Amino acid sequence: MLAEIITIGDEILIGQIIDTNSAYISKELNKIGVKVYQITSIQDDRDHILQSFNDAKKHVDLVIVTGGLGPTKDDVTKQTFCDFFEDTLVEDMNVVENVKQLFKKYQLNKPLPANFQQAMVPSKATILANLHGTAPGMWMEKDNVVFVSLPGVPYEMKHLLQEEVLPRVVKRFNRPFIYHKTLLTYGLGESAIAERIANWENNLPESIKLAYLPSLGRVRLRLSSTGKNEKLLQESIDSQMDVLRGMLSDIAVGFEDETSIVGRIAHILTQKDQTLSLAESCTGGSIVEQITIEAGASSFFLGSIVPYKTELKTKILGVPSSLIKKHSVVSIEVAESMAINCCKLFDTDFSIATTGIAGPTKGDGKDEVGTVCIAIGTPHGVISEKFSFGNDRFRVIEKSTNKAFEMLLKEISKN
Amino acid sequence: MLAEIITIGDEILIGQIIDTNSAYISKELNKIGVKVYQITSIQDDRDHILQSFNDAKKHVDLVIVTGGLGPTKDDVTKQTFCDFFEDTLVEDMNVVENVKQLFKKYQLNKPLPANFQQAMVPSKATILANLHGTAPGMWMEKDNVVFVSLPGVPYEMKHLLQEEVLPRVVKRFNRPFIYHKTLLTYGLGESAIAERIANWENNLPESIKLAYLPSLGRVRLRLSSTGKNEKLLQESIDSQMDVLRGMLSDIAVGFEDETSIVGRIAHILTQKDQTLSLAESCTGGSIVEQITIEAGASSFFLGSIVPYKTELKTKILGVPSSLIKKHSVVSIEVAESMAINCCKLFDTDFSIATTGIAGPTKGDGKDEVGTVCIAIGTPHGVISEKFSFGNDRFRVIEKSTNKAFEMLLKEISKN
Repeated sequence: MLAEIITIGDEILIGQIIDTNSAYISKELNKIGVKVYQITSIQDDRDHILQSFNDAKKHVDLVIVTGGLGPTKDDVTKQTFCDFFEDTLVEDMNVVENVKQLFKKYQLNKPLPANFQQAMVPSKATILANLHGTAPGMWMEKDNVVFVSLPGVPYEMKHLLQEEVLPRVVKRFNRPFIYHKTLLTYGLGESAIAERIANWENNLPESIKLAYLPSLGRVRLRLSSTGKNEKLLQESIDSQMDVLRGMLSDIAVGFEDETSIVGRIAHILTQKDQTLSLAESCTGGSIVEQITIEAGASSFFLGSIVPYKTELKTKILGVPSSLIKKHSVVSIEVAESMAINCCKLFDTDFSIATTGIAGPTKGDGKDEVGTVCIAIGTPHGVISEKFSFGNDRFRVIEKSTNKAFEMLLKEISKN
Repeated sequence: MLAEIITIGDEILIGQIIDTNSAYISKELNKIGVKVYQITSIQDDRDHILQSFNDAKKHVDLVIVTGGLGPTKDDVTKQTFCDFFEDTLVEDMNVVENVKQLFKKYQLNKPLPANFQQAMVPSKATILANLHGTAPGMWMEKDNVVFVSLPGVPYEMKHLLQEEVLPRVVKRFNRPFIYHKTLLTYGLGESAIAERIANWENNLPESIKLAYLPSLGRVRLRLSSTGKNEKLLQESIDSQMDVLRGMLSDIAVGFEDETSIVGRIAHILTQKDQTLSLAESCTGGSIVEQITIEAGASSFFLGSIVPYKTELKTKILGVPSSLIKKHSVVSIEVAESMAINCCKLFDTDFSIATTGIAGPTKGDGKDEVGTVCIAIGTPHGVISEKFSFGNDRFRVIEKSTNKAFEMLLKEISKN
């Protein structure tokens, strides 16, 4: 059971937006046993769309098309659907009604003629009601291949996929099970890991695939398998993963499918009924943003401060100005004082404090761009470390954030 | 002059990572007049790669391939390149030397045999030196079509593209100029804008293309054109953009190619020598993160606090607990008090304060999920507004953040 995802619209091809829809759709299809064969982004051009539809039809059972359904002129998708399916557009009264309802509920003005054009749909299409926008989804078939058209607005696409498309795919197709499990590791390179686990990897059953996914300071190791017996599949991957985790116990953080590193921190703190606060200078809110984006953060996270201006480290956090003067603002000593005072100010068990030079300029300090000090306040004292993270601002912030989470996880995992 | 981008690797097809590389490459190619015809993501499977190469060769002049170059087993790309170009792998001594140098500089351990496999390259390839990683880039030609292979790690890919690929593309191909200009608007829907500018749009010259790009609460309007005379191209787009901006002056925020809304806020505050602080409750650091990710934030941004726990609004920000008790924590009154006290605490001209229920649960308040109050502290007082942003946590945070920036921009733009 294979699928292709086709996105229509210039904005991806000129790099104006990043295609997050396809990643979401791929993940959801995988969960119900549908393998994505290819993702293709094309212009909203009739010939190019037709060619992609014909190519896709040769290789896959299901084609999911997103984009190209807006009420304005840059869209040719629906007419091309008609050409491909030898069909014509007709007015769908349910869609007309939906447009009226949406405007009544959410808009000050009345719907315009352009909004009602959304109700013109191919006569052979099964219409998928879009409760969150005016463009409906469409389900059509040709030579046993299913084509689904969805609006490109992520929120609308997601609802239609979950409520209308996936249940229909489950009913319409026989699918195997696909099972992935991903181990997160920190601190060792791809090749060094490969060398360490070579014997085990060479003896993996044919049916299990291992992938290495490296990024800044981390390598994720993914085991995948496809089959008819869900239980057997999970058992074989889980038992291989146990072996892998055992070989990498010094660098393994947890499983990605269960949890990210933030998820793991949240889980441990919540379970131990302990709390966290933050004092972020050079990371400028990157840490707090990653913590609060997860639901349930309020059960362990109390608050955070970004003392961007040096004087605020003294005024609000109470870091002695003499300490800053003596050691410079980017120092182990200042980071530790920030962490200790952060625990006091917010009354928490743990804290993270960062101070450093993200760049591109050095500021008023004597330290090089990329110098970062991170401290973790704990119920038993404070630990800290000084790093050089290079001269790329984005990377300095990202690496500092990752390192801070890694240091915190180590501390909260102790007894 | 057309290009195709092909990404190799399962991680995009199973939705484990989002393809940001292709957006970056597209944007950079556009700047030098290369139009991206298609972006294709495929598995690291020999037959699929060969088929995609052959398809691409029919339509474009340049194929940029990313991914599939790691030192571990999940990669078949280089061998497939050899098959496609009827070539064999040979050892490149410069790459060997680069691997040695990188390990000396950045790693504690010595390079492993797997690391030196990176030096095995097709004999016909021009090798593009990768100073930031062990996998080199490669440039090959077949029947007048150029194929470039780059590692998938974003940082390495970006350096190779900028330093090795783009200069070679500029030399090798005759390219037209491509010019885009995008107007950011807030507060009016796609159809309503289309209706208002219909006359102008219908009379646009054939050579200029208009695209509508809607997202939460905003519509971006992009004018694009391609031609040989760069100056003429810019002039014709700029003058049409002036007309468009004039018609939409009540909802236009600025041009996207120049600046985002945060960039515009930064520009105005820096120019007026005024300062900003933040008190973010329900947005949980999403606002501060967007401000500090930009270089130069320290010239106007002094600091921020995330008082996630209700008591901290009183303890650190000084919001009277009687006020919270009387009006509830999600109220105009509390938001305004937060904004006023935030200006005082951080000693700034302006502040943003947010308080609300992002969900998924209601918490202890009586308000519905999605209720958000935003206040802007100014030198002349405080303004505020209450919103209902629906019941999706991510959207509540994103909408609140966008709305807060919009409200702040309005205030700082006065006089």
